[in-house]
Amino acid sequence: MIRPTSCHSSASSSRYYSAPVDGTIPLAKQKYVPSSGTYPKGFLVSGTHVGVKPTNKSTPDLAFLASETPCAAAAVFTKNKFQAAPVTVSREMLKRRNNTGVRSIIINSGCANAVTGKGGLEDAEKMGAAADGCFEPPTDGKGGGSIVMSTGVIGQRLPIQKILSKVPLAYDGLGTSHDHWLSTARAICTTDTFPKLISRTFTLPSSPSIEYRMAGMTKGAGMIHPNMATLLGMIATDAPVAPSLLPSLLTNAVNKSFNSISIDGDTSTNDTVAVLANGAAGGKEITFESSEDYASLQSTLSNFATDLAKLVVRDGEGATKFVTIRVTESPSEVGARKIASTIARSPLVKTALYGKDANWGRILCATGYSQISEPGMPINEATDVVPEKTSVSFIPSDGSPELKLLVNGEPESVDEVRAAEILEHEDLEILVRLGGGNEEATYWTCDYSHEYITINGDYRT
Amino acid sequence: MIRPTSCHSSASSSRYYSAPVDGTIPLAKQKYVPSSGTYPKGFLVSGTHVGVKPTNKSTPDLAFLASETPCAAAAVFTKNKFQAAPVTVSREMLKRRNNTGVRSIIINSGCANAVTGKGGLEDAEKMGAAADGCFEPPTDGKGGGSIVMSTGVIGQRLPIQKILSKVPLAYDGLGTSHDHWLSTARAICTTDTFPKLISRTFTLPSSPSIEYRMAGMTKGAGMIHPNMATLLGMIATDAPVAPSLLPSLLTNAVNKSFNSISIDGDTSTNDTVAVLANGAAGGKEITFESSEDYASLQSTLSNFATDLAKLVVRDGEGATKFVTIRVTESPSEVGARKIASTIARSPLVKTALYGKDANWGRILCATGYSQISEPGMPINEATDVVPEKTSVSFIPSDGSPELKLLVNGEPESVDEVRAAEILEHEDLEILVRLGGGNEEATYWTCDYSHEYITINGDYRT
Repeated sequence: MIRPTSCHSSASSSRYYSAPVDGTIPLAKQKYVPSSGTYPKGFLVSGTHVGVKPTNKSTPDLAFLASETPCAAAAVFTKNKFQAAPVTVSREMLKRRNNTGVRSIIINSGCANAVTGKGGLEDAEKMGAAADGCFEPPTDGKGGGSIVMSTGVIGQRLPIQKILSKVPLAYDGLGTSHDHWLSTARAICTTDTFPKLISRTFTLPSSPSIEYRMAGMTKGAGMIHPNMATLLGMIATDAPVAPSLLPSLLTNAVNKSFNSISIDGDTSTNDTVAVLANGAAGGKEITFESSEDYASLQSTLSNFATDLAKLVVRDGEGATKFVTIRVTESPSEVGARKIASTIARSPLVKTALYGKDANWGRILCATGYSQISEPGMPINEATDVVPEKTSVSFIPSDGSPELKLLVNGEPESVDEVRAAEILEHEDLEILVRLGGGNEEATYWTCDYSHEYITINGDYRT
Repeated sequence: MIRPTSCHSSASSSRYYSAPVDGTIPLAKQKYVPSSGTYPKGFLVSGTHVGVKPTNKSTPDLAFLASETPCAAAAVFTKNKFQAAPVTVSREMLKRRNNTGVRSIIINSGCANAVTGKGGLEDAEKMGAAADGCFEPPTDGKGGGSIVMSTGVIGQRLPIQKILSKVPLAYDGLGTSHDHWLSTARAICTTDTFPKLISRTFTLPSSPSIEYRMAGMTKGAGMIHPNMATLLGMIATDAPVAPSLLPSLLTNAVNKSFNSISIDGDTSTNDTVAVLANGAAGGKEITFESSEDYASLQSTLSNFATDLAKLVVRDGEGATKFVTIRVTESPSEVGARKIASTIARSPLVKTALYGKDANWGRILCATGYSQISEPGMPINEATDVVPEKTSVSFIPSDGSPELKLLVNGEPESVDEVRAAEILEHEDLEILVRLGGGNEEATYWTCDYSHEYITINGDYRT
């Protein structure tokens, strides 16, 4: 058995994608960072340096978003049984306030405040109270309205006094410029190599003359998998939405965006995506799910969330590839999702992609085991995969014709030169046709590189 | 954010564990290769060079095991929907022959004959027929009795003529010496760094004066996960067992051995573990599940399979660690298994182990998401994990006291120096106590290293 001694040196291509030690954005990622934006009215933001990690001497690590007026808010949280303290605190606040009267989101990076026991819960409460203290207390008796998030290493206590002492500075630093938004997006990053910020304008059917705005930011880049990850996201819009409708709008948007990406299959303790709507742009409030405005906003929010989620994959830890996995012609959407998710998680698929190896056998293999149950588990085996009906292709990112790898269960004679060309590109779509129905699902994922191992083998130090 | 630029160079520790290009066994693995053995009576084996991979100029890659007399046989196969041709052929043979009258197992490495369509099925049939041709045809009209297995790259056809032309040589080479068994074990290897061969003697309660023998071999080392992997195994014994009892004996043995290991969570198209029992040592045939002999043989076979399975983990692709994951005090065995399996699969846990980082937050995190369902999937959430009752410890392999990391949901103040000492060892046990019952489960796994990425990024070339 001959085994390659080194197919990629850590010093070449993979290194290209990592975050330089000085915090500058890698050349290949600079195109994903906007140089301007149109931001929603009535929202102010700031990114402030605290030094949550003692080694951080200057990078902003406290993000603050405030609405000039109390607004509607909703959030989706991780389903991990070990929910971080800020998740508990934020969930309780939204419930207590019934999704109304929310004034701010406060986020620290560098420490997740997860699995920190009762002390950690107190810390998260203090952080929320400090943010609340920046605003007039609500007169409805329902308490302050600040969402708290934390991201970073698990199992360590927050340097809470350090954070609290900087909240006034964060408040004083609030502003509406593009630089303010970019600095805030930077403050929530951990192993991200670039800040993830998007903004756009839209209209609603009932008031075509009003320009509404939406802006949002997110962070990755490890523990990313549905339900979700050390993934945080916040989206703000100046459109007017009834508080009771915001949770369903967000849940629908997240299911096909943040819940359809996988970096490494790990679902973290802190995942939170929140949306705030303050209605500052005016117009008629959306109050019915059956309205045209609702449908229109749902579409805008879903597309927006998808674009944010894709940025997370684009910056997956150590990633050198951005891979779309589309499973079509499925008897069920659940089946299509499960298959796409399984391919996205397969370490063998992910390493082959890194090695630019057209090893489609591994894609098939993952497809084939996606719906089997583990021994001892309740048997719940679906029959969406029929080998004789299954086809697999690469869809090149440059618009050239698809490369068929397997057609109806029979392997094609693959042009390896062509396959290698396709795999040279950063972007790739893997298309699996099940030949058994009309449902489909799409996942976005990245590869596993030496860099991924380096980053995660030594994260805490 | 400071990110380490290199926590491990590919040239140091990780390389130490890889297979040298010349096929010699790494120093660290030599202790797992036996220098002698006691092999079951009536079985002959050979390892022959075919050159299934054109680059293989001298290493044996065709394994042949023959019983002098027709014997009882059983096998467990992968549940992957894309079952390799040899799996289909072997399954049909055992069914047709009713687990009796089996004469041989023939295995090639270097090519899995998986997803090879109708042509591949014909190839596997020809391979079986060639093995059958070495023996007197059975007179019961049930056809030949050879089990066929293949392992290697998926989606490529076997060089079947080359293999068929060497079957007579494989037959002529059959023998019973330790060197014969070792050469056969070597012939089934792919990315393995050492041949995995075990033999032992045992007695049965009904005939304490008879020395029975059992020998077996297995191969890894990627796509290893329950149900199973590009994992092949064969076990031979000269104990007398009724053919009808062999399947349940094997299934029970496999569930807590080969189905309790995980290298990378990928379940392959070819996995097969077969057992042959020829009764050559004499004594009373085991004919009842309720007999003492049956219970005794079950225990022997289960322990034997566990030891074989552990060797696979010990040689996980790129592995530098051998990790036992034990989940105890669980309300259900299924829950304990699922949690152990999830921790074993977590890339973040596996990379932390590689980095010798006592990042127990990741163990907790995996525990916390092990029983949640993905969005869109049927909700089937168990409640085995209660954060306030969960404890996590490292159990050092040198017998020194356990290091408590989390006790009843509250983090311990961890002695990092002690943690680092424990993680210096190749072996480690992670103990998760759920505090909610008396069931438990054990999994064995390894870490993810740079070497894993190197091996799998460029496997086909």
